[in-house]
Amino acid sequence: MNRIPAIDIYVRYCETDAGGHVSNTSYFLYMEEGRTRFFELLGFGPRTRKGINFIVASTECDFIAQAYASQTLSISTEISHIGNKSFTMVHEIFNLETGALIAIGRAVIVCYNFQEQQSVSIPPNLRNRLEQFLANVSI
Amino acid sequence: MNRIPAIDIYVRYCETDAGGHVSNTSYFLYMEEGRTRFFELLGFGPRTRKGINFIVASTECDFIAQAYASQTLSISTEISHIGNKSFTMVHEIFNLETGALIAIGRAVIVCYNFQEQQSVSIPPNLRNRLEQFLANVSI
Amino acid sequence: MNRIPAIDIYVRYCETDAGGHVSNTSYFLYMEEGRTRFFELLGFGPRTRKGINFIVASTECDFIAQAYASQTLSISTEISHIGNKSFTMVHEIFNLETGALIAIGRAVIVCYNFQEQQSVSIPPNLRNRLEQFLANVSI
Amino acid sequence: MNRIPAIDIYVRYCETDAGGHVSNTSYFLYMEEGRTRFFELLGFGPRTRKGINFIVASTECDFIAQAYASQTLSISTEISHIGNKSFTMVHEIFNLETGALIAIGRAVIVCYNFQEQQSVSIPPNLRNRLEQFLANVSI
Repeated sequence: MNRIPAIDIYVRYCETDAGGHVSNTSYFLYMEEGRTRFFELLGFGPRTRKGINFIVASTECDFIAQAYASQTLSISTEISHIGNKSFTMVHEIFNLETGALIAIGRAVIVCYNFQEQQSVSIPPNLRNRLEQFLANVSI
Repeated sequence: MNRIPAIDIYVRYCETDAGGHVSNTSYFLYMEEGRTRFFELLGFGPRTRKGINFIVASTECDFIAQAYASQTLSISTEISHIGNKSFTMVHEIFNLETGALIAIGRAVIVCYNFQEQQSVSIPPNLRNRLEQFLANVSI
Repeated sequence: MNRIPAIDIYVRYCETDAGGHVSNTSYFLYMEEGRTRFFELLGFGPRTRKGINFIVASTECDFIAQAYASQTLSISTEISHIGNKSFTMVHEIFNLETGALIAIGRAVIVCYNFQEQQSVSIPPNLRNRLEQFLANVSI
Repeated sequence: MNRIPAIDIYVRYCETDAGGHVSNTSYFLYMEEGRTRFFELLGFGPRTRKGINFIVASTECDFIAQAYASQTLSISTEISHIGNKSFTMVHEIFNLETGALIAIGRAVIVCYNFQEQQSVSIPPNLRNRLEQFLANVSI
Protein backbone atom coordinates (compact mmCIF):
# COMPACT_ATOMS: atom_id res chain seq x y z
CA MET A 1 0.00 0.00 0.00
CA ASN A 2 1.21 3.47 -0.92
CA ARG A 3 0.60 6.56 1.15
CA ILE A 4 0.54 10.19 0.22
CA PRO A 5 2.29 12.54 2.64
CA ALA A 6 0.14 14.11 5.34
CA ILE A 7 -0.84 17.70 4.61
CA ASP A 8 -0.43 20.62 7.00
CA ILE A 9 -3.45 22.79 7.71
CA TYR A 10 -3.23 26.09 9.57
CA VAL A 11 -6.28 26.79 11.74
CA ARG A 12 -7.74 30.19 10.88
CA TYR A 13 -9.28 32.26 13.67
CA CYS A 14 -12.56 32.41 11.70
CA GLU A 15 -12.64 28.58 11.73
CA THR A 16 -13.12 28.62 15.49
CA ASP A 17 -16.40 29.42 17.22
CA ALA A 18 -17.50 31.10 20.42
CA GLY A 19 -16.76 27.84 22.26
CA GLY A 20 -13.14 28.92 21.89
CA HIS A 21 -12.17 25.92 19.78
CA VAL A 22 -12.34 24.85 16.14
CA SER A 23 -15.98 24.60 15.01
CA ASN A 24 -17.23 21.12 14.19
CA THR A 25 -18.15 22.52 10.79
CA SER A 26 -14.53 23.45 9.99
CA TYR A 27 -13.28 19.87 10.03
CA PHE A 28 -15.26 19.23 6.86
CA LEU A 29 -13.32 22.04 5.17
CA TYR A 30 -10.09 20.38 6.22
CA MET A 31 -11.25 16.98 4.98
CA GLU A 32 -12.17 18.49 1.63
CA GLU A 33 -8.71 19.99 1.34
CA GLY A 34 -7.15 16.62 2.21
CA ARG A 35 -9.35 14.90 -0.35
CA THR A 36 -8.61 17.33 -3.15
CA ARG A 37 -4.87 17.26 -2.60
CA PHE A 38 -4.99 13.47 -2.49
CA PHE A 39 -6.60 13.39 -5.92
CA GLU A 40 -4.08 15.87 -7.30
CA LEU A 41 -1.19 13.73 -6.11
CA LEU A 42 -2.80 10.71 -7.75
CA GLY A 43 -3.02 12.58 -11.04
CA PHE A 44 -6.78 13.09 -10.80
CA GLY A 45 -6.95 16.75 -9.82
CA PRO A 46 -9.68 18.98 -11.21
CA ARG A 47 -7.52 19.95 -14.19
CA THR A 48 -6.16 16.46 -14.92
CA ARG A 49 -9.09 14.07 -14.47
CA LYS A 50 -10.81 15.01 -17.71
CA GLY A 51 -14.21 13.41 -17.98
CA ILE A 52 -14.27 12.16 -14.39
CA ASN A 53 -16.34 14.02 -11.84
CA PHE A 54 -17.00 13.31 -8.20
CA ILE A 55 -19.91 13.94 -5.89
CA VAL A 56 -19.94 13.43 -2.12
CA ALA A 57 -22.57 10.86 -1.12
CA SER A 58 -21.99 11.07 2.60
CA THR A 59 -19.42 12.32 5.06
CA GLU A 60 -18.89 12.10 8.78
CA CYS A 61 -16.41 13.09 11.45
CA ASP A 62 -15.69 11.87 14.98
CA PHE A 63 -14.21 14.57 17.19
CA ILE A 64 -11.60 13.16 19.57
CA ALA A 65 -9.94 16.23 21.02
CA GLN A 66 -10.28 19.96 20.58
CA ALA A 67 -8.10 22.14 18.35
CA TYR A 68 -7.54 25.88 18.56
CA ALA A 69 -6.78 28.93 16.43
CA SER A 70 -3.28 29.24 14.98
CA GLN A 71 -2.48 25.59 15.56
CA THR A 72 -1.19 23.56 12.66
CA LEU A 73 -3.04 20.33 12.03
CA SER A 74 -1.82 17.43 9.92
CA ILE A 75 -4.29 15.47 7.84
CA SER A 76 -3.61 12.07 6.34
CA THR A 77 -5.84 10.45 3.75
CA GLU A 78 -6.24 6.88 2.58
CA ILE A 79 -8.78 4.71 0.79
CA SER A 80 -10.68 2.23 2.96
CA HIS A 81 -13.10 0.73 0.44
CA ILE A 82 -13.59 0.61 -3.32
CA GLY A 83 -17.00 -0.30 -4.72
CA ASN A 84 -18.39 -0.29 -8.23
CA LYS A 85 -19.33 3.38 -8.53
CA SER A 86 -18.06 4.74 -5.23
CA PHE A 87 -15.15 4.57 -2.83
CA THR A 88 -14.55 5.57 0.77
CA MET A 89 -11.81 7.86 1.99
CA VAL A 90 -10.59 8.05 5.58
CA HIS A 91 -8.93 11.12 7.04
CA GLU A 92 -7.03 11.32 10.31
CA ILE A 93 -6.38 14.78 11.70
CA PHE A 94 -3.56 15.30 14.19
CA ASN A 95 -2.12 18.21 16.11
CA LEU A 96 1.18 18.61 14.25
CA GLU A 97 3.07 19.84 17.31
CA THR A 98 1.94 17.28 19.88
CA GLY A 99 0.92 14.40 17.64
CA ALA A 100 -2.43 14.12 19.45
CA LEU A 101 -5.27 12.69 17.40
CA ILE A 102 -7.91 15.39 16.94
CA ALA A 103 -10.49 13.87 14.60
CA ILE A 104 -11.21 10.96 12.28
CA GLY A 105 -13.44 11.50 9.28
CA ARG A 106 -14.75 9.60 6.32
CA ALA A 107 -16.32 10.46 2.99
CA VAL A 108 -18.04 8.29 0.41
CA ILE A 109 -17.28 9.65 -3.04
CA VAL A 110 -19.29 8.68 -6.10
CA CYS A 111 -18.18 9.00 -9.72
CA TYR A 112 -20.86 11.15 -11.26
CA ASN A 113 -21.98 12.31 -14.67
CA PHE A 114 -23.37 15.80 -14.09
CA GLN A 115 -24.88 16.08 -17.60
CA GLU A 116 -26.98 12.99 -17.10
CA GLN A 117 -27.22 13.51 -13.33
CA GLN A 118 -26.39 9.92 -12.51
CA SER A 119 -23.62 7.90 -10.94
CA VAL A 120 -21.21 5.99 -13.18
CA SER A 121 -18.68 3.20 -12.69
CA ILE A 122 -15.22 4.09 -11.45
CA PRO A 123 -13.06 4.31 -14.59
CA PRO A 124 -10.30 1.64 -14.72
CA ASN A 125 -7.41 4.13 -14.64
CA LEU A 126 -8.77 5.73 -11.46
CA ARG A 127 -9.61 2.35 -9.91
CA ASN A 128 -6.06 1.19 -10.52
CA ARG A 129 -4.64 4.22 -8.73
CA LEU A 130 -7.10 4.01 -5.82
CA GLU A 131 -6.19 0.35 -5.26
CA GLN A 132 -2.58 1.34 -4.75
CA PHE A 133 -3.68 3.48 -1.80
CA LEU A 134 -6.20 1.04 -0.34
CA ALA A 135 -5.50 0.63 3.37
CA ASN A 136 -5.13 -2.64 5.28
CA VAL A 137 -4.78 -4.84 2.24
CA SER A 138 -3.13 -8.09 3.23
CA ILE A 139 -0.01 -8.74 1.07
CA MET B 1 -43.80 12.63 20.95
CA ASN B 2 -43.64 16.38 20.43
CA ARG B 3 -42.09 18.04 17.41
CA ILE B 4 -40.67 21.46 16.90
CA PRO B 5 -41.65 23.21 13.66
CA ALA B 6 -39.26 22.77 10.76
CA ILE B 7 -37.02 25.77 10.14
CA ASP B 8 -36.53 27.52 6.82
CA ILE B 9 -32.99 28.03 5.56
CA TYR B 10 -32.17 30.22 2.59
CA VAL B 11 -29.23 28.93 0.52
CA ARG B 12 -26.60 31.64 0.12
CA TYR B 13 -24.63 31.80 -3.10
CA CYS B 14 -21.39 31.51 -1.11
CA GLU B 15 -22.66 28.21 0.32
CA THR B 16 -22.48 26.65 -3.14
CA ASP B 17 -19.27 25.52 -4.79
CA ALA B 18 -17.87 25.36 -8.31
CA GLY B 19 -19.85 22.14 -8.82
CA GLY B 20 -22.82 24.49 -9.16
CA HIS B 21 -24.65 23.06 -6.15
CA VAL B 22 -24.60 23.46 -2.38
CA SER B 23 -21.23 22.38 -0.98
CA ASN B 24 -21.24 19.25 1.18
CA THR B 25 -19.63 21.41 3.87
CA SER B 26 -22.62 23.79 4.01
CA TYR B 27 -25.06 21.15 5.22
CA PHE B 28 -23.21 21.09 8.53
CA LEU B 29 -23.89 24.82 8.89
CA TYR B 30 -27.58 24.17 8.32
CA MET B 31 -27.61 21.31 10.82
CA GLU B 32 -25.98 23.53 13.42
CA GLU B 33 -28.66 26.15 12.86
CA GLY B 34 -31.38 23.49 13.21
CA ARG B 35 -29.75 22.20 16.39
CA THR B 36 -29.39 25.60 18.02
CA ARG B 37 -32.93 26.66 17.27
CA PHE B 38 -34.18 23.34 18.58
CA PHE B 39 -32.46 23.97 21.91
CA GLU B 40 -33.82 27.50 22.07
CA LEU B 41 -37.37 26.25 21.55
CA LEU B 42 -36.83 23.72 24.33
CA GLY B 43 -35.72 26.48 26.69
CA PHE B 44 -32.05 25.48 26.55
CA GLY B 45 -30.65 28.19 24.28
CA PRO B 46 -27.21 29.66 24.94
CA ARG B 47 -28.67 32.37 27.18
CA THR B 48 -31.13 30.14 29.04
CA ARG B 49 -29.29 26.88 29.74
CA LYS B 50 -27.12 28.30 32.51
CA GLY B 51 -24.48 25.82 33.61
CA ILE B 52 -25.13 23.38 30.76
CA ASN B 53 -22.73 23.27 27.85
CA PHE B 54 -22.62 21.06 24.80
CA ILE B 55 -19.86 19.70 22.62
CA VAL B 56 -20.28 17.84 19.34
CA ALA B 57 -18.83 14.32 19.57
CA SER B 58 -19.56 13.32 16.01
CA THR B 59 -21.67 14.37 13.09
CA GLU B 60 -22.51 12.97 9.69
CA CYS B 61 -24.65 13.71 6.67
CA ASP B 62 -26.02 11.61 3.82
CA PHE B 63 -26.60 13.60 0.66
CA ILE B 64 -29.70 12.42 -1.19
CA ALA B 65 -30.27 15.11 -3.81
CA GLN B 66 -28.59 18.34 -4.78
CA ALA B 67 -29.67 21.82 -3.68
CA TYR B 68 -28.88 25.13 -5.34
CA ALA B 69 -28.34 28.82 -4.57
CA SER B 70 -31.39 30.87 -3.61
CA GLN B 71 -33.49 27.82 -2.81
CA THR B 72 -35.19 27.64 0.53
CA LEU B 73 -34.59 24.45 2.46
CA SER B 74 -36.60 23.20 5.40
CA ILE B 75 -34.82 21.42 8.25
CA SER B 76 -36.59 19.32 10.86
CA THR B 77 -34.89 18.10 14.02
CA GLU B 78 -35.73 15.35 16.46
CA ILE B 79 -34.00 13.26 19.11
CA SER B 80 -33.27 9.64 18.17
CA HIS B 81 -31.38 8.44 21.24
CA ILE B 82 -30.69 9.59 24.80
CA GLY B 83 -27.74 8.11 26.69
CA ASN B 84 -26.18 8.95 30.02
CA LYS B 85 -23.98 11.85 29.00
CA SER B 86 -24.92 12.23 25.35
CA PHE B 87 -27.85 12.23 22.98
CA THR B 88 -28.32 11.95 19.23
CA MET B 89 -30.13 14.44 17.04
CA VAL B 90 -31.45 13.67 13.56
CA HIS B 91 -32.02 16.35 10.95
CA GLU B 92 -33.93 15.97 7.71
CA ILE B 93 -33.43 18.63 5.08
CA PHE B 94 -36.05 19.14 2.39
CA ASN B 95 -36.50 21.43 -0.57
CA LEU B 96 -39.27 23.65 0.75
CA GLU B 97 -40.81 24.22 -2.68
CA THR B 98 -40.87 20.65 -4.01
CA GLY B 99 -40.78 18.68 -0.77
CA ALA B 100 -37.91 16.57 -2.11
CA LEU B 101 -35.61 15.10 0.53
CA ILE B 102 -32.17 16.64 0.12
CA ALA B 103 -30.13 15.29 3.04
CA ILE B 104 -30.33 13.43 6.34
CA GLY B 105 -27.84 14.22 9.07
CA ARG B 106 -27.10 13.23 12.61
CA ALA B 107 -25.08 14.67 15.48
CA VAL B 108 -24.08 13.16 18.80
CA ILE B 109 -24.04 15.90 21.42
CA VAL B 110 -22.29 15.51 24.76
CA CYS B 111 -22.97 17.54 27.91
CA TYR B 112 -19.60 19.00 28.72
CA ASN B 113 -17.89 20.87 31.53
CA PHE B 114 -15.38 23.14 29.77
CA GLN B 115 -13.65 24.16 33.02
CA GLU B 116 -12.82 20.57 33.87
CA GLN B 117 -12.68 19.51 30.22
CA GLN B 118 -14.79 16.43 30.74
CA SER B 119 -18.19 15.10 29.83
CA VAL B 120 -20.95 15.17 32.44
CA SER B 121 -24.35 13.49 32.87
CA ILE B 122 -27.35 15.01 31.12
CA PRO B 123 -29.06 17.15 33.80
CA PRO B 124 -32.58 15.89 34.73
CA ASN B 125 -34.38 19.03 33.50
CA LEU B 126 -32.76 18.72 30.07
CA ARG B 127 -33.31 14.95 29.96
CA ASN B 128 -36.97 15.46 30.68
CA ARG B 129 -37.35 17.88 27.80
CA LEU B 130 -35.34 15.73 25.37
CA GLU B 131 -37.53 12.73 26.15
CA GLN B 132 -40.58 14.66 25.03
CA PHE B 133 -38.99 14.98 21.59
CA LEU B 134 -37.63 11.44 21.34
CA ALA B 135 -38.69 9.95 18.02
CA ASN B 136 -40.33 6.55 17.47
CA VAL B 137 -41.36 6.03 21.06
CA SER B 138 -44.25 3.57 21.20
CA ILE B 139 -47.19 5.18 23.09
CA MET C 1 -37.38 55.92 -3.98
CA ASN C 2 -38.62 52.40 -3.33
CA ARG C 3 -37.26 50.14 -0.63
CA ILE C 4 -37.27 46.41 -0.27
CA PRO C 5 -38.15 45.08 3.18
CA ALA C 6 -35.22 44.38 5.49
CA ILE C 7 -34.32 40.70 5.74
CA ASP C 8 -33.87 38.76 8.95
CA ILE C 9 -30.68 36.78 9.44
CA TYR C 10 -30.18 34.30 12.26
CA VAL C 11 -26.59 34.19 13.57
CA ARG C 12 -25.27 30.62 13.51
CA TYR C 13 -22.89 29.53 16.22
CA CYS C 14 -20.33 28.57 13.56
CA GLU C 15 -20.43 32.17 12.29
CA THR C 16 -18.89 33.37 15.55
CA ASP C 17 -15.21 33.00 16.41
CA ALA C 18 -13.15 32.43 19.52
CA GLY C 19 -13.48 36.14 20.31
CA GLY C 20 -16.99 35.17 21.39
CA HIS C 21 -18.69 37.37 18.79
CA VAL C 22 -19.63 37.16 15.12
CA SER C 23 -16.50 36.85 12.96
CA ASN C 24 -15.71 39.80 10.72
CA THR C 25 -15.74 37.30 7.86
CA SER C 26 -19.39 36.36 8.49
CA TYR C 27 -20.75 39.81 7.71
CA PHE C 28 -19.81 39.27 4.08
CA LEU C 29 -22.01 36.17 4.05
CA TYR C 30 -24.89 38.24 5.38
CA MET C 31 -24.30 40.97 2.82
CA GLU C 32 -24.31 38.40 0.04
CA GLU C 33 -27.64 37.07 1.28
CA GLY C 34 -29.04 40.62 1.40
CA ARG C 35 -27.76 41.29 -2.11
CA THR C 36 -29.17 38.10 -3.61
CA ARG C 37 -32.59 38.55 -2.06
CA PHE C 38 -32.63 42.15 -3.24
CA PHE C 39 -32.09 41.01 -6.83
CA GLU C 40 -34.78 38.35 -6.51
CA LEU C 41 -37.30 40.91 -5.31
CA LEU C 42 -36.38 43.12 -8.25
CA GLY C 43 -37.04 40.27 -10.66
CA PHE C 44 -33.34 39.68 -11.36
CA GLY C 45 -32.72 36.54 -9.32
CA PRO C 46 -30.39 33.83 -10.64
CA ARG C 47 -33.28 32.07 -12.37
CA THR C 48 -34.97 35.18 -13.76
CA ARG C 49 -32.16 37.44 -15.00
CA LYS C 50 -31.42 35.39 -18.10
CA GLY C 51 -28.31 36.64 -19.84
CA ILE C 52 -27.26 39.00 -17.05
CA ASN C 53 -24.46 37.98 -14.75
CA PHE C 54 -22.80 39.81 -11.91
CA ILE C 55 -19.32 39.82 -10.46
CA VAL C 56 -18.22 41.56 -7.24
CA ALA C 57 -15.56 44.18 -7.96
CA SER C 58 -15.02 45.22 -4.38
CA THR C 59 -16.70 44.98 -1.02
CA GLU C 60 -16.14 46.45 2.42
CA CYS C 61 -17.68 46.52 5.85
CA ASP C 62 -17.42 48.86 8.84
CA PHE C 63 -18.06 47.12 12.13
CA ILE C 64 -19.93 49.39 14.57
CA ALA C 65 -20.95 47.03 17.36
CA GLN C 66 -20.56 43.34 18.09
CA ALA C 67 -23.17 40.66 17.42
CA TYR C 68 -23.46 37.25 19.02
CA ALA C 69 -24.65 33.69 18.34
CA SER C 70 -28.41 33.10 18.15
CA GLN C 71 -29.19 36.77 17.71
CA THR C 72 -31.36 37.80 14.80
CA LEU C 73 -29.95 40.55 12.64
CA SER C 74 -31.86 42.65 10.15
CA ILE C 75 -30.19 43.68 6.91
CA SER C 76 -31.46 46.45 4.65
CA THR C 77 -30.15 47.01 1.13
CA GLU C 78 -30.30 49.96 -1.20
CA ILE C 79 -28.48 51.29 -4.26
CA SER C 80 -26.17 54.26 -3.68
CA HIS C 81 -24.66 54.72 -7.13
CA ILE C 82 -25.30 53.55 -10.70
CA GLY C 83 -22.49 53.79 -13.24
CA ASN C 84 -22.16 52.55 -16.80
CA LYS C 85 -21.17 48.95 -16.14
CA SER C 86 -21.37 48.82 -12.36
CA PHE C 87 -23.46 49.91 -9.42
CA THR C 88 -22.94 50.18 -5.67
CA MET C 89 -25.09 48.56 -3.03
CA VAL C 90 -25.19 49.62 0.62
CA HIS C 91 -26.22 47.30 3.41
CA GLU C 92 -27.07 48.27 6.97
CA ILE C 93 -27.12 45.51 9.54
CA PHE C 94 -29.07 45.98 12.77
CA ASN C 95 -29.76 43.94 15.86
CA LEU C 96 -33.43 43.10 15.29
CA GLU C 97 -34.28 43.05 19.00
CA THR C 98 -32.58 46.26 20.13
CA GLY C 99 -32.40 48.18 16.86
CA ALA C 100 -28.70 48.87 17.44
CA LEU C 101 -26.64 49.41 14.30
CA ILE C 102 -24.12 46.59 14.00
CA ALA C 103 -22.40 47.12 10.66
CA ILE C 104 -22.52 49.06 7.40
CA GLY C 105 -21.24 47.45 4.24
CA ARG C 106 -20.94 48.21 0.58
CA ALA C 107 -20.36 46.21 -2.59
CA VAL C 108 -19.57 47.33 -6.12
CA ILE C 109 -21.23 44.94 -8.55
CA VAL C 110 -20.24 44.73 -12.20
CA CYS C 111 -22.34 43.29 -15.02
CA TYR C 112 -20.11 40.64 -16.48
CA ASN C 113 -19.97 38.36 -19.49
CA PHE C 114 -18.30 35.20 -18.21
CA GLN C 115 -17.88 33.69 -21.70
CA GLU C 116 -15.86 36.67 -22.90
CA GLN C 117 -14.51 37.42 -19.42
CA GLN C 118 -15.25 41.11 -19.62
CA SER C 119 -17.54 43.67 -18.06
CA VAL C 120 -20.59 44.85 -20.00
CA SER C 121 -23.01 47.77 -19.75
CA ILE C 122 -25.91 47.52 -17.34
CA PRO C 123 -28.88 46.39 -19.48
CA PRO C 124 -31.69 49.00 -19.67
CA ASN C 125 -34.31 46.83 -17.95
CA LEU C 126 -31.99 46.30 -14.95
CA ARG C 127 -30.91 49.95 -14.90
CA ASN C 128 -34.53 51.02 -14.82
CA ARG C 129 -35.23 48.82 -11.80
CA LEU C 130 -32.05 49.85 -9.97
CA GLU C 131 -32.94 53.53 -10.41
CA GLN C 132 -36.19 52.95 -8.57
CA PHE C 133 -34.17 51.86 -5.53
CA LEU C 134 -31.47 54.51 -5.74
CA ALA C 135 -31.10 56.15 -2.34
CA ASN C 136 -31.12 59.88 -1.61
CA VAL C 137 -32.58 60.86 -4.91
CA SER C 138 -34.29 64.25 -4.60
CA ILE C 139 -37.96 64.03 -5.71
CA MET D 1 11.26 48.67 6.31
CA ASN D 2 11.11 44.98 7.15
CA ARG D 3 8.85 42.52 5.41
CA ILE D 4 7.51 39.18 6.48
CA PRO D 5 7.59 36.44 3.86
CA ALA D 6 4.44 36.00 1.78
CA ILE D 7 2.28 33.08 2.87
CA ASP D 8 0.93 30.36 0.59
CA ILE D 9 -2.80 29.64 0.67
CA TYR D 10 -4.33 26.64 -1.04
CA VAL D 11 -7.81 27.32 -2.47
CA ARG D 12 -10.29 24.78 -1.17
CA TYR D 13 -13.11 23.67 -3.45
CA CYS D 14 -15.65 24.76 -0.81
CA GLU D 15 -14.17 28.27 -0.99
CA THR D 16 -15.42 28.62 -4.56
CA ASP D 17 -19.04 29.29 -5.48
CA ALA D 18 -21.39 28.37 -8.29
CA GLY D 19 -19.82 31.14 -10.39
CA GLY D 20 -16.95 28.64 -10.78
CA HIS D 21 -14.42 30.90 -9.07
CA VAL D 22 -13.34 31.77 -5.54
CA SER D 23 -16.23 33.43 -3.66
CA ASN D 24 -15.75 37.08 -2.74
CA THR D 25 -16.39 36.01 0.84
CA SER D 26 -13.37 33.65 0.88
CA TYR D 27 -10.82 36.42 0.39
CA PHE D 28 -11.63 37.66 3.89
CA LEU D 29 -10.68 34.23 5.24
CA TYR D 30 -7.36 34.47 3.44
CA MET D 31 -6.75 37.99 4.74
CA GLU D 32 -7.45 36.83 8.27
CA GLU D 33 -4.92 34.04 7.87
CA GLY D 34 -2.36 36.53 6.52
CA ARG D 35 -3.05 38.87 9.42
CA THR D 36 -2.76 36.23 12.10
CA ARG D 37 0.47 34.80 10.76
CA PHE D 38 1.87 38.30 10.49
CA PHE D 39 1.22 38.88 14.19
CA GLU D 40 2.75 35.53 15.09
CA LEU D 41 5.93 36.37 13.20
CA LEU D 42 6.08 39.71 15.02
CA GLY D 43 5.84 37.93 18.37
CA PHE D 44 2.25 39.02 18.97
CA GLY D 45 0.41 35.79 18.24
CA PRO D 46 -2.61 34.78 20.32
CA ARG D 47 -0.43 32.91 22.79
CA THR D 48 2.35 35.50 23.02
CA ARG D 49 0.62 38.90 23.10
CA LYS D 50 -0.58 38.58 26.69
CA GLY D 51 -2.91 41.41 27.61
CA ILE D 52 -3.23 42.74 24.06
CA ASN D 53 -6.38 42.01 22.11
CA PHE D 54 -7.48 43.09 18.68
CA ILE D 55 -10.82 43.79 17.08
CA VAL D 56 -11.46 44.44 13.38
CA ALA D 57 -12.97 47.92 12.86
CA SER D 58 -13.35 47.64 9.11
CA THR D 59 -12.12 45.57 6.22
CA GLU D 60 -12.37 45.74 2.46
CA CYS D 61 -11.16 43.94 -0.63
CA ASP D 62 -10.78 44.92 -4.28
CA PHE D 63 -11.04 41.96 -6.63
CA ILE D 64 -8.67 42.32 -9.59
CA ALA D 65 -8.76 38.88 -11.21
CA GLN D 66 -10.50 35.61 -10.53
CA ALA D 67 -8.96 32.63 -8.72
CA TYR D 68 -10.02 29.00 -8.89
CA ALA D 69 -10.14 25.81 -6.83
CA SER D 70 -6.84 24.03 -6.16
CA GLN D 71 -4.76 27.06 -7.07
CA THR D 72 -2.17 28.25 -4.62
CA LEU D 73 -2.35 31.92 -3.76
CA SER D 74 0.36 33.97 -2.11
CA ILE D 75 -0.58 36.67 0.37
CA SER D 76 1.74 39.43 1.51
CA THR D 77 0.98 41.70 4.45
CA GLU D 78 2.35 45.05 5.51
CA ILE D 79 1.36 47.99 7.70
CA SER D 80 0.22 51.12 5.88
CA HIS D 81 -0.78 53.38 8.78
CA ILE D 82 -0.34 53.50 12.56
CA GLY D 83 -2.69 55.65 14.61
CA ASN D 84 -3.17 56.06 18.35
CA LYS D 85 -5.44 53.08 19.02
CA SER D 86 -5.58 51.48 15.58
CA PHE D 87 -3.45 50.55 12.61
CA THR D 88 -4.11 49.55 9.01
CA MET D 89 -2.88 46.39 7.34
CA VAL D 90 -2.66 45.90 3.58
CA HIS D 91 -2.75 42.49 1.95
CA GLU D 92 -1.87 41.68 -1.64
CA ILE D 93 -2.99 38.33 -2.97
CA PHE D 94 -1.23 36.83 -5.99
CA ASN D 95 -1.56 33.67 -8.04
CA LEU D 96 1.60 31.87 -6.92
CA GLU D 97 2.11 30.13 -10.27
CA THR D 98 1.60 33.05 -12.65
CA GLY D 99 2.35 35.99 -10.37
CA ALA D 100 -0.88 37.68 -11.42
CA LEU D 101 -2.39 40.05 -8.87
CA ILE D 102 -5.73 38.65 -7.72
CA ALA D 103 -6.90 40.97 -4.96
CA ILE D 104 -5.85 43.81 -2.66
CA GLY D 105 -7.39 44.09 0.77
CA ARG D 106 -7.13 46.22 3.84
CA ALA D 107 -8.15 45.92 7.47
CA VAL D 108 -8.23 48.48 10.24
CA ILE D 109 -7.36 46.78 13.52
CA VAL D 110 -8.08 48.34 16.90
CA CYS D 111 -6.43 47.42 20.20
CA TYR D 112 -9.36 46.47 22.39
CA ASN D 113 -10.07 45.72 26.02
CA PHE D 114 -12.86 43.12 25.92
CA GLN D 115 -13.52 43.32 29.69
CA GLU D 116 -14.26 47.02 29.51
CA GLN D 117 -15.51 46.84 25.91
CA GLN D 118 -13.48 49.80 24.77
CA SER D 119 -10.56 50.59 22.53
CA VAL D 120 -7.15 51.24 24.10
CA SER D 121 -3.88 52.79 22.93
CA ILE D 122 -1.44 50.63 20.99
CA PRO D 123 1.08 49.42 23.60
CA PRO D 124 4.64 50.73 23.01
CA ASN D 125 6.17 47.29 22.43
CA LEU D 126 3.62 46.51 19.70
CA ARG D 127 3.92 50.01 18.20
CA ASN D 128 7.65 49.60 17.97
CA ARG D 129 7.29 46.33 16.06
CA LEU D 130 4.58 47.65 13.76
CA GLU D 131 6.75 50.64 12.84
CA GLN D 132 9.44 48.29 11.59
CA PHE D 133 6.94 46.93 9.06
CA LEU D 134 5.39 50.25 8.07
CA ALA D 135 5.39 50.52 4.28
CA ASN D 136 6.65 53.47 2.25
CA VAL D 137 8.64 55.01 5.05
CA SER D 138 11.25 57.38 3.65
CA ILE D 139 14.77 56.62 4.99
